[in-house]
Amino acid sequence: MELLQNYIDGGWRASNERQAIDVINPATQQCMARVPYGGGTVEDVDAAVAAAARAAAAWAEVPVMQRVQPLYRLKALLEEHLEELAETITNECGKTRAESVGELQRAIENVETACAAPLLMQSEFSENITRGIDEFVIRQPVGVCACIAPFNFPGMIPFWFLPYAIACGNTFLIKPSEKVPLTMQKVMGLIDRIGLPAGVVSLVHGGKETVDALLEHPGIKAISFVGSTQIARYIYAKAAQHGKRVQAQGGAKNPVVVLPDADLETTSRIIADSVYGCAGQRCLAASNIVLVGDQRGQIKDALYEAAKSRKTGYGLTEGVEMGPVITKESKTRIEHLIEQGTQEGATVLLDGRGAAIEGFEQGNFIQPTILTDVPLDGQLIRTEIFGPVMSLINLATVEEAVAFINRNAYGNMACLFTGSGASARKFRSEANAGNIGINIGVAAPMAQFPFSGWNDSFFGDLHGQGRHAIEFFTQTKVVIERWPKEWSRKF
Amino acid sequence: MELLQNYIDGGWRASNERQAIDVINPATQQCMARVPYGGGTVEDVDAAVAAAARAAAAWAEVPVMQRVQPLYRLKALLEEHLEELAETITNECGKTRAESVGELQRAIENVETACAAPLLMQSEFSENITRGIDEFVIRQPVGVCACIAPFNFPGMIPFWFLPYAIACGNTFLIKPSEKVPLTMQKVMGLIDRIGLPAGVVSLVHGGKETVDALLEHPGIKAISFVGSTQIARYIYAKAAQHGKRVQAQGGAKNPVVVLPDADLETTSRIIADSVYGCAGQRCLAASNIVLVGDQRGQIKDALYEAAKSRKTGYGLTEGVEMGPVITKESKTRIEHLIEQGTQEGATVLLDGRGAAIEGFEQGNFIQPTILTDVPLDGQLIRTEIFGPVMSLINLATVEEAVAFINRNAYGNMACLFTGSGASARKFRSEANAGNIGINIGVAAPMAQFPFSGWNDSFFGDLHGQGRHAIEFFTQTKVVIERWPKEWSRKF
Amino acid sequence: MELLQNYIDGGWRASNERQAIDVINPATQQCMARVPYGGGTVEDVDAAVAAAARAAAAWAEVPVMQRVQPLYRLKALLEEHLEELAETITNECGKTRAESVGELQRAIENVETACAAPLLMQSEFSENITRGIDEFVIRQPVGVCACIAPFNFPGMIPFWFLPYAIACGNTFLIKPSEKVPLTMQKVMGLIDRIGLPAGVVSLVHGGKETVDALLEHPGIKAISFVGSTQIARYIYAKAAQHGKRVQAQGGAKNPVVVLPDADLETTSRIIADSVYGCAGQRCLAASNIVLVGDQRGQIKDALYEAAKSRKTGYGLTEGVEMGPVITKESKTRIEHLIEQGTQEGATVLLDGRGAAIEGFEQGNFIQPTILTDVPLDGQLIRTEIFGPVMSLINLATVEEAVAFINRNAYGNMACLFTGSGASARKFRSEANAGNIGINIGVAAPMAQFPFSGWNDSFFGDLHGQGRHAIEFFTQTKVVIERWPKEWSRKF
Amino acid sequence: MELLQNYIDGGWRASNERQAIDVINPATQQCMARVPYGGGTVEDVDAAVAAAARAAAAWAEVPVMQRVQPLYRLKALLEEHLEELAETITNECGKTRAESVGELQRAIENVETACAAPLLMQSEFSENITRGIDEFVIRQPVGVCACIAPFNFPGMIPFWFLPYAIACGNTFLIKPSEKVPLTMQKVMGLIDRIGLPAGVVSLVHGGKETVDALLEHPGIKAISFVGSTQIARYIYAKAAQHGKRVQAQGGAKNPVVVLPDADLETTSRIIADSVYGCAGQRCLAASNIVLVGDQRGQIKDALYEAAKSRKTGYGLTEGVEMGPVITKESKTRIEHLIEQGTQEGATVLLDGRGAAIEGFEQGNFIQPTILTDVPLDGQLIRTEIFGPVMSLINLATVEEAVAFINRNAYGNMACLFTGSGASARKFRSEANAGNIGINIGVAAPMAQFPFSGWNDSFFGDLHGQGRHAIEFFTQTKVVIERWPKEWSRKF
Repeated sequence: MELLQNYIDGGWRASNERQAIDVINPATQQCMARVPYGGGTVEDVDAAVAAAARAAAAWAEVPVMQRVQPLYRLKALLEEHLEELAETITNECGKTRAESVGELQRAIENVETACAAPLLMQSEFSENITRGIDEFVIRQPVGVCACIAPFNFPGMIPFWFLPYAIACGNTFLIKPSEKVPLTMQKVMGLIDRIGLPAGVVSLVHGGKETVDALLEHPGIKAISFVGSTQIARYIYAKAAQHGKRVQAQGGAKNPVVVLPDADLETTSRIIADSVYGCAGQRCLAASNIVLVGDQRGQIKDALYEAAKSRKTGYGLTEGVEMGPVITKESKTRIEHLIEQGTQEGATVLLDGRGAAIEGFEQGNFIQPTILTDVPLDGQLIRTEIFGPVMSLINLATVEEAVAFINRNAYGNMACLFTGSGASARKFRSEANAGNIGINIGVAAPMAQFPFSGWNDSFFGDLHGQGRHAIEFFTQTKVVIERWPKEWSRKF
Repeated sequence: MELLQNYIDGGWRASNERQAIDVINPATQQCMARVPYGGGTVEDVDAAVAAAARAAAAWAEVPVMQRVQPLYRLKALLEEHLEELAETITNECGKTRAESVGELQRAIENVETACAAPLLMQSEFSENITRGIDEFVIRQPVGVCACIAPFNFPGMIPFWFLPYAIACGNTFLIKPSEKVPLTMQKVMGLIDRIGLPAGVVSLVHGGKETVDALLEHPGIKAISFVGSTQIARYIYAKAAQHGKRVQAQGGAKNPVVVLPDADLETTSRIIADSVYGCAGQRCLAASNIVLVGDQRGQIKDALYEAAKSRKTGYGLTEGVEMGPVITKESKTRIEHLIEQGTQEGATVLLDGRGAAIEGFEQGNFIQPTILTDVPLDGQLIRTEIFGPVMSLINLATVEEAVAFINRNAYGNMACLFTGSGASARKFRSEANAGNIGINIGVAAPMAQFPFSGWNDSFFGDLHGQGRHAIEFFTQTKVVIERWPKEWSRKF
Repeated sequence: MELLQNYIDGGWRASNERQAIDVINPATQQCMARVPYGGGTVEDVDAAVAAAARAAAAWAEVPVMQRVQPLYRLKALLEEHLEELAETITNECGKTRAESVGELQRAIENVETACAAPLLMQSEFSENITRGIDEFVIRQPVGVCACIAPFNFPGMIPFWFLPYAIACGNTFLIKPSEKVPLTMQKVMGLIDRIGLPAGVVSLVHGGKETVDALLEHPGIKAISFVGSTQIARYIYAKAAQHGKRVQAQGGAKNPVVVLPDADLETTSRIIADSVYGCAGQRCLAASNIVLVGDQRGQIKDALYEAAKSRKTGYGLTEGVEMGPVITKESKTRIEHLIEQGTQEGATVLLDGRGAAIEGFEQGNFIQPTILTDVPLDGQLIRTEIFGPVMSLINLATVEEAVAFINRNAYGNMACLFTGSGASARKFRSEANAGNIGINIGVAAPMAQFPFSGWNDSFFGDLHGQGRHAIEFFTQTKVVIERWPKEWSRKF
Repeated sequence: MELLQNYIDGGWRASNERQAIDVINPATQQCMARVPYGGGTVEDVDAAVAAAARAAAAWAEVPVMQRVQPLYRLKALLEEHLEELAETITNECGKTRAESVGELQRAIENVETACAAPLLMQSEFSENITRGIDEFVIRQPVGVCACIAPFNFPGMIPFWFLPYAIACGNTFLIKPSEKVPLTMQKVMGLIDRIGLPAGVVSLVHGGKETVDALLEHPGIKAISFVGSTQIARYIYAKAAQHGKRVQAQGGAKNPVVVLPDADLETTSRIIADSVYGCAGQRCLAASNIVLVGDQRGQIKDALYEAAKSRKTGYGLTEGVEMGPVITKESKTRIEHLIEQGTQEGATVLLDGRGAAIEGFEQGNFIQPTILTDVPLDGQLIRTEIFGPVMSLINLATVEEAVAFINRNAYGNMACLFTGSGASARKFRSEANAGNIGINIGVAAPMAQFPFSGWNDSFFGDLHGQGRHAIEFFTQTKVVIERWPKEWSRKF
């Protein structure tokens, strides 16, 4: 079984850590590789930071129009290897092939957006702020930056940061999730071919010790994190304690509100895709479905049909629409949460527990589940499930729905289904969440826009993607120059 | 003796804290007022946050073009009361009247820049990101915000934040330095007249307990701080631990480099102003003066003359060019640092200790001081003095000067004096500091530009002033709307 | 009777033209003043351009933060003199006091927006476009600029240009309409007090010869015009023939579409305000009201009631909601157009001809008029009436309504009334007009946005107001600087 | 001999014009192809506009992120075919292979910059401009656009417009110079392969009649032109007369100023490259070299050596540094201008007339020429030569040099060679030209910056390249939406 290597200083290097854990295909429990895991990875981090630091000064001086040329090549390579990368994602992460392709396309969009760095890095110039004096800003890189990535989008989330970071002249370390290290391993194989100098991008495997080493290392200037809220808080506090820039994206419990004037067919299809897509393991998955007014029967029936007919199985099997969840522990946790829901008083309208997928009996499968009458004062209504579970709630008015949303500790996403322009505006204006969808199930911002979590879904101020990423990965340097006219030499 | 009140919920309120400390005129030791100081101020913070939170929702809904109208009035009032406010600054802070006027003008510039919020808050709209779907950003306020201000610019520093915060729809708390609370007290009296709803701006006095209460209060979403590096680190870590946005500006040890082709007269005058202005108590004061190449005698003589002739005294006395330092403790500390310098091997070219100002014998005066031959491997060369002390250093080349600067832990400012365009570009490109001056002594960014500290001079990513302030005081909300054409009703 | 003087070179000067025409109050036919009119004004233009050219270089060098200070003062003066200016507008132009106040508020908004010039003039800087080379833009003024203003908004339209032009460092000439010269005369009296250097703003009265002199004068670099399409074409072609920058806004024939799901009360009130506001004499007046689907009775009745109850009279009389049209000729022309409509087959539902206003029997009054069944293939449906005449049209679908709009030669405005988000999006995306209103009757952009006419409603590319105005009134100067590091002097 | 076809509606079509003229290799007089030329091309224009108009609506609705995908492919194809295209440029236009490669790289940079259209087309959104109302801008394409290209950069100049135009959703017509139609013919062959729908890009050959047809055609909404000032004036006036947007770039007479503190070696090399590069046939070629102060001998000698040693010949011959001028007529005209110079009093320091290039005796060669003592009051000093002729002028001060520049009717470029930051700032601030170089010989803006001609070098306001191109090729549509909260449906 392959023991994964790190990519440091322009080449593949064995980890200093001898211990390793298995990378498991969640549909088959097959071990696909082994990944270093333990305190020895701290030395790996040291080596990677050292190489990144060595590379930083020279890379920062490469003109930005040249720095983006490797990104054009990366776009082409990602497109060329799309199918192969998608299979890797599916095999280590569980999602369907189509979902894997989708996340890679989002990755590519971020590469494209970072190619605009020659424009995005332009800064402000003011002539003659006072006689003889000009003032302007230069955007310079911050140095060595790192991202700590979660398991659920192995091919996309590092791209919220990486292409911007290097386009801006930083050097960059990726710490993929130890559960899904293979996708970035393959991506790193492509990055190896795009002509970057050694040390500009590195890949270090590991677990908690590795993360702490990154947070504590004085050579790292900025940390980008995506994961659970609990860990995001930890990352934010610890990185700040060590004086770094930090952006830390956490969990969510996303509400979707359906008004009586919503289009029935579109709404039910989109909501089912949002709840069950990626088996519910995404920070923009819909979780609480709020039915407003006197419409419950129709939309509930449509959601039930959409959920029940969703085909669960191995993500590479033709026709499969939902894969397994990431680990056995995750499966158990989700099943416990469903049980907890019933104990709090919810009714199980559709029970996805005990799923048996032929040929994949060992897979971590849960089938689409629907809970109704989930009590508003219970725990489940505010607990991130991160599994294919829909909770149905009935409220009387848009005002109540917004108030329900705004009691939520999280703020990643809130969506509304309606035909009414006025309801849409009220909702987008008042709902406390950073990504709002109107007749949208997964309000994932395009790469040109910031991925805007709010409240407990995000700690920091500058988000991933687009202009925020450029701001995060550059430091403003203000220059004030006095060149008195009388100094212009006379001859 | 007046015991200062807080301004909370649209009116003046007595503190819950009975203990108080004196506000001392540093030129006379006269007690000007007493300021609440102790654990009881925690309740004041609670009351102020409660009022600010109550005001927040309604203020956020006031259209931005209306929200800036009070700022236009504030500009007019500040201009009208300029002299009176300047006297207050001078009396509690020590600096000269001209310096006080200067800092107020910088405050007014920030008010003007915040008046542009209707433009600055405009966000990005993309039509048809995919068929039938538009995506855009809304900038919304973050809620209750607070600034913790230092003693050295009582009339300016809160304005790096306050006008932007409220223009963006936030409500705002000011915690002035307990050493210089009177200026903001008077400013608050003007703010009281500009037509803001109750709770939009509050003023709370106090000390460390007050600061901690602000950092820990769950109702406060963003903290802006300016002070020493040691405290800035504390603020950054603690505010982050409590999940807040934070921008924390620290100390500095600012180098100024003089090349042989610098204009002698301009250079020596500007450098003396930079070192001795505000008695050296500013985070952009020049401290280490680096003379490059074979020019030492001339510029040293000119600096000596400029320093020696600088008139020290009470800031409101006609002709006085430098006032006292803030406290007796500060005076003692600075004198010890001069002593330490000599012990490390420096020579005292001009000794400002033991200053006796007629009529102000009790004032905390130190006269302009010059140390030469300050050793590069000592402590003094890297210690922030925050007093009127110039250290002269000789280096051979621009490269050595830049290397010297880049070994500095701080990064607030670096300046170069030269006639050479190439030297200027090399310096602005390579010197690791966030505010660069070329033939400038105090590279303080105009209000339209971010006040860009680097390294240990700043913790966070978004700075005060201009677009950074707008970004810090707003949250991006991404909206994605699907309105299928076929839903357009047929009749 | 006062013969109006020009304001040239910082003071009031008699015109070189001895002939003059009367300025008539359209409600009373009273002559309010006399305005120079004839070929002698060409010399006035020469003198004004000469003074403006003399002032240009020095004004361009005043730092922009200082250049906007007079605009802050102008805002305060306009607010202080609001009522007096409003009365002047009403008396020379006819509209109601409330309408006059409204247009002045729009003028003030433009002054506020131009106060942001220190931000808006910031340009792009790119460090190190290739090794050793930086590239950036400077925005510099274009020189002497002029606006030629129409009669219908004497207090607002010059402000779409003037405050931006001078904030950007240009000098500026105003040629007000000879029909309504008094408002700008009074405004000029205020501008005289704000501290501008002589020659920065000038006012020249006159007619066609004056306009041609402006278009032909080699010293004028940019022309801004608002008026009819016929003249706008002439201005655009002639100014271009003389090599100038030019933006020329023309006429309109604005459609408003009402869907069956529109809110009845809001819609009818707003549409009546749009059609009859300013007696229909605005380039954003609704003219063709398109009723879509099977709803005709209700909305038609509501519009009829709103129109019929509208009180016509002298604009300063309490309670009056609509004033006279500008001239007797205009009144006659509008009445002929109503007649033409009936000849083409339209039905007069409400006939405003023959209005008799007690006490103002000589006024150019026409009362609210409604035509129904206006034939789509006639002339009236595409002729700008510029009077208080509403044409009602019935169409079956939104698609037909959009198609009707897009056959219109003009493109100033198109509005839709609906509750449907999807209909709104389809409309705003597909309707060929530069200013789109959804549930808005007069889609006049705020000062931060460009006043975006399309098609025959605008000739040029950069519009008035906001960022477009800044772009129009500045020239980009690209600077590319090579400062090789090796030139940095060694010593 | 091949008769060139047009590319219309997605395929190659024979012209309606039977007459044709020869495309001549200026180094050999060999006829390379024949190009349609005459009134029949008016029908070609009609056909191309019709196809472009048919394609426009659908192309405008393709989301911008998809519209730029063909541009990524075009970048790759241009890079792949770089050598082949460069040879074509050299053969039809005369310049050296290296020069041809250089211009193609500039073309590719523009393609890259246009790939950022998803960012560049983002427009401004303002929430809640007043209660319940939002306002925003949509950028929509203007329709069918056309560029009329000159002979001197057959591979680059259309790319200042084309990639932006189509990225913004317009359809586009190219009219290449009839002297050099082959490069665009080949480029069109590549564009044919990038997946654009039929009609999005078209190519029409021809001469003056073709140009007039483009200017007069009501279906064309925007004209981009580069050529001589005389024709630019004509284009600007005529396109405006027909109501179109227009940007028309004209000729130049570019001054380069050398101060005594300039670096001798760099300066003389760069200036020689600027004067003699592309045989002087570029609108940014240096022409008047102004030597300031007492330095004449040294720099004059160096320029003489650099000019004399420049190898003239066929552009594909190894080692050749300068090719022929475009036509025999051009050669004759240039030689006459040299003669005129001598008649006005200039001295011929180096005479490039009568060049005999072995093996290319028929070529239109002129060798590097230097005139000295060119009189300031003559014609030559202000006449665009567009050939390899350097005029040397001596002036005493920077002020005189700037005054000399600012008497120039043109304003394309002005360059300064100096070591002094103050001289550089004075020059960049005061010289009236849109592209300023400091220690730069050809101040050609990068693709992210506008190509900013001033005065008689440009007619219009928005330039080619970057953000200006996006502004030129889009129309702003302001949308104002009222969605009252109370309309949000209650259930």
